[in-house]
Amino acid sequence: MKKIGIIGLGKMGMNLGLNLMEKNVEVVGYDNSEKTREEAVVKSLTVKNSIDELLSDLDNQKVVLLSTPAGEITNELVKTLTEKLKPGDIIIDSGNSYYKDSVKNFELTNEKGIEFLDCGTSGGMEGARYGACLMIGGKKETFNQVEEIFEKLACDQGYLYTGKPGSGHYLKMIHNGIEYGMMQAIGEGFDILNASEYEYDFEKVASVWNHGSVIRSWLIELVGNSFRDDPKLEKIRGVIDASGEGKWTVEEALDLCVPVPVIANSLFVRNQSKVNDSFSAKVVATMRNQFGGHAVVKK
Amino acid sequence: MKKIGIIGLGKMGMNLGLNLMEKNVEVVGYDNSEKTREEAVVKSLTVKNSIDELLSDLDNQKVVLLSTPAGEITNELVKTLTEKLKPGDIIIDSGNSYYKDSVKNFELTNEKGIEFLDCGTSGGMEGARYGACLMIGGKKETFNQVEEIFEKLACDQGYLYTGKPGSGHYLKMIHNGIEYGMMQAIGEGFDILNASEYEYDFEKVASVWNHGSVIRSWLIELVGNSFRDDPKLEKIRGVIDASGEGKWTVEEALDLCVPVPVIANSLFVRNQSKVNDSFSAKVVATMRNQFGGHAVVKK
Repeated sequence: MKKIGIIGLGKMGMNLGLNLMEKNVEVVGYDNSEKTREEAVVKSLTVKNSIDELLSDLDNQKVVLLSTPAGEITNELVKTLTEKLKPGDIIIDSGNSYYKDSVKNFELTNEKGIEFLDCGTSGGMEGARYGACLMIGGKKETFNQVEEIFEKLACDQGYLYTGKPGSGHYLKMIHNGIEYGMMQAIGEGFDILNASEYEYDFEKVASVWNHGSVIRSWLIELVGNSFRDDPKLEKIRGVIDASGEGKWTVEEALDLCVPVPVIANSLFVRNQSKVNDSFSAKVVATMRNQFGGHAVVKK
Repeated sequence: MKKIGIIGLGKMGMNLGLNLMEKNVEVVGYDNSEKTREEAVVKSLTVKNSIDELLSDLDNQKVVLLSTPAGEITNELVKTLTEKLKPGDIIIDSGNSYYKDSVKNFELTNEKGIEFLDCGTSGGMEGARYGACLMIGGKKETFNQVEEIFEKLACDQGYLYTGKPGSGHYLKMIHNGIEYGMMQAIGEGFDILNASEYEYDFEKVASVWNHGSVIRSWLIELVGNSFRDDPKLEKIRGVIDASGEGKWTVEEALDLCVPVPVIANSLFVRNQSKVNDSFSAKVVATMRNQFGGHAVVKK
């Protein structure tokens, strides 16, 4: 098994590294944050202080796995690596990159004879550490050369070669779109339970639903954990961030004219959740006030 | 363990009966369809030819489990049983009854001293046969008297006493609302994949998603089975029935002013799927034609 270089030692990259080390793969890491590098050393990872140092430590055919924030950071990194690597070396982007970026990154590296795989990674931090779900796009020959890495990183049966460049990150994007919809459906269900006349123990509800019901799933397990720690979620606010994949899924659906009311609404709900006092609600309230004399809530 | 009478020997009732028999519970069944009764006999169930015969075969404290279509059929049956049973006897409604009906049925039986439990049952036919997920509302004392039946019917940790009358069927209603949303999100995701430029093997996609991903779930497993048998689902039409729980969930959300865009849209999509040539689409097309000269599709 080849030595592998990991760039980006955040919550995902670090865990992917530990996962590989446990399976007797030699790992060397780099992160542009000194603090993160120090944390990685504490966790017994071999860490280098620059990309050049990392690359010079790798085998003749270098394999570099990226676990960096999607977008400019990853794209710039691929450009940098394209200048430093030589034909036959392999870059694996395991982050949540937009598939169109991955297609461009494939083309950019391909011009120099450098190999590029786009690898969608699901399963969260736990999956990265103990067995992830991996969706890998790119040239089949490249995939074959490093399949062993994916086999070691993934849980049993948890990796798939998905086809031409971009198809791995595309599949991960759609996975996340589905995830948005599933999560929102679960959220809405508990919202009704919470408003109802009945007094449910939500932790027990999640538990019974995860034993034999049609909706049993990892997400129901996770929400059960949340209710165990905070029975009515009184410790947090209902604000939901989004890191792009849901938006890309809806944009893709618009481009393809595929109706996706549930995924789109899940995204809209997330956007709404970040608005403290909605301008659209003000607009509607002020119109109701004018035509019907209905009260508006003043500041 | 008490002998139990099951009324309604359809795909759920029959499997619940076989499940109990396997666990050494004496079961006697009745269905108003002669054909269904004959099929049950073939599957080695003891079957009676009338409700009276069934009741006279039960113990002194009779326990009758209903697995009948929700609504009028079940409600009429409860009325009939209320006339035939005596104080202390127990009716368990394991069907998909509307929770307000179950509250009424509780009150009706309670007046005569007959006990009534509303038992939401999830897990489909497989769950009914080998271990279901049960949500049980009603008096705690009544639940305690027959808890052993639920323990035997359910999979490990798969039953929950949910509180006062109606709370079992209410929880099952919300479960189904969530199920609508989760299923629709999965459907939309595969719809985009199907329209995309990539060529995915959907059975393999479902399989990899069910090994380590965030969206791993029984529903993803089921959709994988479907793709194994029919890779592009060319053998069926995209028509989705609904049996009421999703509609009740949305109605409940409206009554409680809880926003449920995802569950509501899942229901709307099901209704839309049953419309061959939508009147609303005609209305919109004809307006576009008038103001913009945009073509309409003529019959």
